[in-house]
Amino acid sequence: MSVQQLFEQQLSVVNVGLPSFAQAIQEVKTPVVHLEWSPPAQGDPAVGMHLAELLVSERVDAANEEAIDRLYEGQPVLLGVARALEVIPEMAERMLLHAGPPIAWGEMCGPMQGAITGAILFEGWASSADEARRLAASGAVRLEPNHHHSAVGPMAGVISPSMPVWIVENQAYGNRAYSNMNEGLGKVLRFGAYDEEVLSRLRWMRDVLGPAMARALEGGGPVELRPLIAQALHMGDEVHNRNVAASGLLFRRLAPALLRSGMDSDDEAAVLEFMAGNDHFFLNVSMASSKSMLDAAHGIPGSSLVTAMARNGVDFGIRVSGLGNEWLTAPAPDIEGLYFPGFSAADANPDLGDSSIAETVGLGGFAMAAAPAIVQFVGGSPQDAVAYSREMRQITLGASPAFTLPALSFGGTASGIDIRLVVDTGVAPIINTGIAHRKAGVGQVGAGLVRAPMACFERAVTRLAEKLAE
Amino acid sequence: MSVQQLFEQQLSVVNVGLPSFAQAIQEVKTPVVHLEWSPPAQGDPAVGMHLAELLVSERVDAANEEAIDRLYEGQPVLLGVARALEVIPEMAERMLLHAGPPIAWGEMCGPMQGAITGAILFEGWASSADEARRLAASGAVRLEPNHHHSAVGPMAGVISPSMPVWIVENQAYGNRAYSNMNEGLGKVLRFGAYDEEVLSRLRWMRDVLGPAMARALEGGGPVELRPLIAQALHMGDEVHNRNVAASGLLFRRLAPALLRSGMDSDDEAAVLEFMAGNDHFFLNVSMASSKSMLDAAHGIPGSSLVTAMARNGVDFGIRVSGLGNEWLTAPAPDIEGLYFPGFSAADANPDLGDSSIAETVGLGGFAMAAAPAIVQFVGGSPQDAVAYSREMRQITLGASPAFTLPALSFGGTASGIDIRLVVDTGVAPIINTGIAHRKAGVGQVGAGLVRAPMACFERAVTRLAEKLAE
Repeated sequence: MSVQQLFEQQLSVVNVGLPSFAQAIQEVKTPVVHLEWSPPAQGDPAVGMHLAELLVSERVDAANEEAIDRLYEGQPVLLGVARALEVIPEMAERMLLHAGPPIAWGEMCGPMQGAITGAILFEGWASSADEARRLAASGAVRLEPNHHHSAVGPMAGVISPSMPVWIVENQAYGNRAYSNMNEGLGKVLRFGAYDEEVLSRLRWMRDVLGPAMARALEGGGPVELRPLIAQALHMGDEVHNRNVAASGLLFRRLAPALLRSGMDSDDEAAVLEFMAGNDHFFLNVSMASSKSMLDAAHGIPGSSLVTAMARNGVDFGIRVSGLGNEWLTAPAPDIEGLYFPGFSAADANPDLGDSSIAETVGLGGFAMAAAPAIVQFVGGSPQDAVAYSREMRQITLGASPAFTLPALSFGGTASGIDIRLVVDTGVAPIINTGIAHRKAGVGQVGAGLVRAPMACFERAVTRLAEKLAE
Repeated sequence: MSVQQLFEQQLSVVNVGLPSFAQAIQEVKTPVVHLEWSPPAQGDPAVGMHLAELLVSERVDAANEEAIDRLYEGQPVLLGVARALEVIPEMAERMLLHAGPPIAWGEMCGPMQGAITGAILFEGWASSADEARRLAASGAVRLEPNHHHSAVGPMAGVISPSMPVWIVENQAYGNRAYSNMNEGLGKVLRFGAYDEEVLSRLRWMRDVLGPAMARALEGGGPVELRPLIAQALHMGDEVHNRNVAASGLLFRRLAPALLRSGMDSDDEAAVLEFMAGNDHFFLNVSMASSKSMLDAAHGIPGSSLVTAMARNGVDFGIRVSGLGNEWLTAPAPDIEGLYFPGFSAADANPDLGDSSIAETVGLGGFAMAAAPAIVQFVGGSPQDAVAYSREMRQITLGASPAFTLPALSFGGTASGIDIRLVVDTGVAPIINTGIAHRKAGVGQVGAGLVRAPMACFERAVTRLAEKLAE
């Protein structure tokens, strides 16, 4: 075809890159499709070179194959409940665990400082909030990330030695993961509240709820979590910000066993009422389940699989299978969301909590197509929810064989984030999340969507390339 | 525009009617959209004339406006549980109620004869199955449709005097509706089984489950069903063939109240286990809820609103608001479905049960877009499920303000079938349904989709036109 022939035809134009070119063509009324494209790694040539190395590395591909097999074959099972000090690896007497990457007391955000203060009061290490804060600042209480102890916790995510924790075992590989128990909404420790209402609920959870769940699981457990979560995805949950179906399924499973356990019947009724009144009761179980699946795929040399995304309210950090215990961090982003009446973006703390472990395994934002009703909570339309689930397939090594999405014709949810694909496509993982007030103890002020910071993935690409070159 | 100009342009053709015209145009590569169309009432000129009268009748429109207001403003509330004889209007000592339009013992299908036999044994009116059948054939037991007593029951739908029944009150209008309690799957009375396993379960339901639910509702009720069903629709139920979410929500609501009721704790545990093991526990509550909403819109002179669709396994019948207690019937259709292993269409009984009250109110097949996962049970794709919900909007007077569908951008489900629209469009209501074995007592053999017979609606159009002419 000659150039003349080309221009005699009606043109259909695909524009790649700068949208202004497309605008110019649209102005002369030619149909145009604009594809967003920008150079990988925002044009940083060093990262681009490292990315190119990783993308053609057979060693990385082989390591990822092993990592993804381990991820997809996980069999998380809810085994029981025990006090943190008794079961969490390397938990110590004067130690508190927190969400996200490591952070010192002085650097922590308001809600996390509040939760640390509350946990010290709950443990009886101090008798006033001032004393608790001084103790925390003195360094006499060790503060470590949950993720260093096979644990996860939502929002501030604080776990103290005498708190009851869920025990999830990945029975395909034998590793275990842990999470604290969900306190419900309102004034709660995970948003940094620590008044008497909060502390007395924590004592009741330690003395009644935890033992009740332990006994119910002895009689009615263990509970296989893979089919339970799969079922909840067909019931409108994405098991991060919507857990109403999964909470109901767990309730239905444990309530009869609780009645058979011979507990005091007033306590039984109080426990069932507490569970029945908390649509997020399952969240922490879901998180421990995801953690147990991802930990089995962690530590494979050369693998570019993301095995954790977590936020401490100041920094957003990721961990990568082939990078061991390194954290790749960037400032925690602000959240685009819907605010509860009386609150606005000015009240919001930056992104906080270990709950993005859900997205890391392919749930939460990655499974939003399963939960169209969640857009009433986090914003957007049901069509957006489906679009996010599709988009995430660009950055994962495959689709989950366990967790399927009816709205995508029962295709598996995008699962197994590859740092290479994130940097190469420029598509950052999408996360559904709650929004904490920036001041300790006010609580949740909204919910919304946030993208993981690209800088974490770029740094990870560079570090993995350096490590492979060693 | 001249004809010549017309033919010089590129043609886009909309073809209405015979698809062969469209094929011819497609063969010459012109874009063509084929709209299915056939003359109303399959070309019967008498029905067509009656339809034309009704379609332009201001009286019908005014009556429908009132009927639909009453339907949409319904506030069904689960009040309690009591024995049928104590609460069902005009229930009598030697009376059994059954599903669908009226039918004599000798005409009944296998599963319904089995259920009648079982109910007679359960009531102790006979001591053997042969004796029970002779008694039924003798006319000494009155057999009447549930719908004549403000009641509904799934499949054979048999309600006997001492069975416990759910009491639902439509608090906007004060009318009540009733349904029996769900026995679970397997060998059950509603599929015509009546061996000792079935009868002993019915006795336990009468002596333990019914009283337990009555006490739980005294302490934890009444339960507003409109928001509960609305929530279940956002959790993947359509509350006809999928009730797992609604059953869980009801369980969660009643379990703590049951524990507070001071029952024997072994009975409490058995009740909770029974509820927890039955994903269809809510079905009968859902049916009574729909019945209570539709009855409030029944009996409005001139209204062409359908207020019941019900099947006795031989006939399919509808009732229309403006036609009082008349039934418009046609032979019960066969169901297109998926069969459980070992069964096929040859085993299937024609369409059976009062459960199509769900579709009559806009749930079930009309709300399939809410329940994409149900296609694994009834056949088709998630896209089909959405298409059915859209299609049904052609034959209803509006969309439910109570029940919304996330997949249709939270639009209301098509609610309020108009006989005129059914006949005019040729679109028959779609129903999700279980499939019973044609022999008594074998049980459920599959599930699928069925269309209400057009003849019922055509007859209704004629009858309503005749009635208006009187």
